[in-house]
Amino acid sequence: MKKFAVILCGAGNLDGSEIHEATLALLAIDELNCQYQCFASDKAQGRVMNFVTGQPELNESRNQLKEAARIARGKIKPFHDLKVQDFDALILPGGFGVAFSLCNFAEKGHQAQIQSELSEIIQAFHSAKKPIGAICISPTLIALALKDTTQNLTLTLGNEDDLAGKEIEKLNCKVIPCKPDEYIIDQENLIVSTPAYMNAKRISEVRNGIEKLVKAVFELL
Amino acid sequence: MKKFAVILCGAGNLDGSEIHEATLALLAIDELNCQYQCFASDKAQGRVMNFVTGQPELNESRNQLKEAARIARGKIKPFHDLKVQDFDALILPGGFGVAFSLCNFAEKGHQAQIQSELSEIIQAFHSAKKPIGAICISPTLIALALKDTTQNLTLTLGNEDDLAGKEIEKLNCKVIPCKPDEYIIDQENLIVSTPAYMNAKRISEVRNGIEKLVKAVFELL
Repeated sequence: MKKFAVILCGAGNLDGSEIHEATLALLAIDELNCQYQCFASDKAQGRVMNFVTGQPELNESRNQLKEAARIARGKIKPFHDLKVQDFDALILPGGFGVAFSLCNFAEKGHQAQIQSELSEIIQAFHSAKKPIGAICISPTLIALALKDTTQNLTLTLGNEDDLAGKEIEKLNCKVIPCKPDEYIIDQENLIVSTPAYMNAKRISEVRNGIEKLVKAVFELL
Repeated sequence: MKKFAVILCGAGNLDGSEIHEATLALLAIDELNCQYQCFASDKAQGRVMNFVTGQPELNESRNQLKEAARIARGKIKPFHDLKVQDFDALILPGGFGVAFSLCNFAEKGHQAQIQSELSEIIQAFHSAKKPIGAICISPTLIALALKDTTQNLTLTLGNEDDLAGKEIEKLNCKVIPCKPDEYIIDQENLIVSTPAYMNAKRISEVRNGIEKLVKAVFELL
């Protein structure tokens, strides 16, 4: 039975992992009769938001692992427990936690720093020729982790005019527009990406894009 | 276009709405080309849990509406904004928030009190002959809201030996065992129920049960 590692960073689109994207990734993995194990960083989130007002909760701190455990129903491990040899593929859901906690892309754009543990995980999957599926804003993590070793990564960040895509192009990536219910595949680097809520208007579009992405990753195994 | 009201109570199976169940309910509604609006109580949760250790966070308080907004991507309203005439059906996902925040079933069993605003909402949908779909532990809310007005409600709480089912039988309900990827329908009262994580082992079972439940509710419209 094939095993997928899934990277989370909180619970909620504004400050953590996008809940629908993460849930639908787990569903798609299970529907293929594959196993999943969720992982997160045991560090504070880059920010905490009030989801009713859309404003920051300036006096509140939350832990990425503990919040992500809400999506994983408690079955989650810290990054340092992730051994690449135990897994066949890696899936990275989106959400602003990616750009505020897993790296500082929201602040620094193409000059962002990615969490070193996560960078090593992505590099290890890539070096081992194990496929990676990146959802929503998460292709930025692949671009940042591989920028010094890999040229001409091909990925999507949604619509043609998206600012995140313009930043990632500065890292010598080929950024291709994509509809939310489709995906882009980089056959050479074994990287599959789908925009999800980068441009989706409906949860059913997100479902279809993520289901196709997970199947495409599975077919690369 | 048919409109579903969805009742949430936080984000996470141990102290709020079960995230997978809530997400998959929204997905199933959208896949039928129906609209949804999420609602929650603007009150503190009955408890807050650490999802890594499974233990209570005794010094922490969280608001049901603000946490539920994480699942709803911010598109959520308080209970008092729910006008039954604006909706065709009601959906109640599960999670321990149901038994700790929306009522005190976890502590009191069949003698539990349900939040008065939610009780009135359930009674109003039932009186208006608008169908209700109850997932996981949520059929307890229907039983508590209708116990003084309706005899012989038929619903499921999962396996035959489930303690929640034994308690709800004391309210003169007919509690029927059900597999997680199936549902039970009470044609007279227009109530559909599915066990989801009451007995599901896999997210794909939860998906299938909730998809069927939402379709069954839709067919009652």
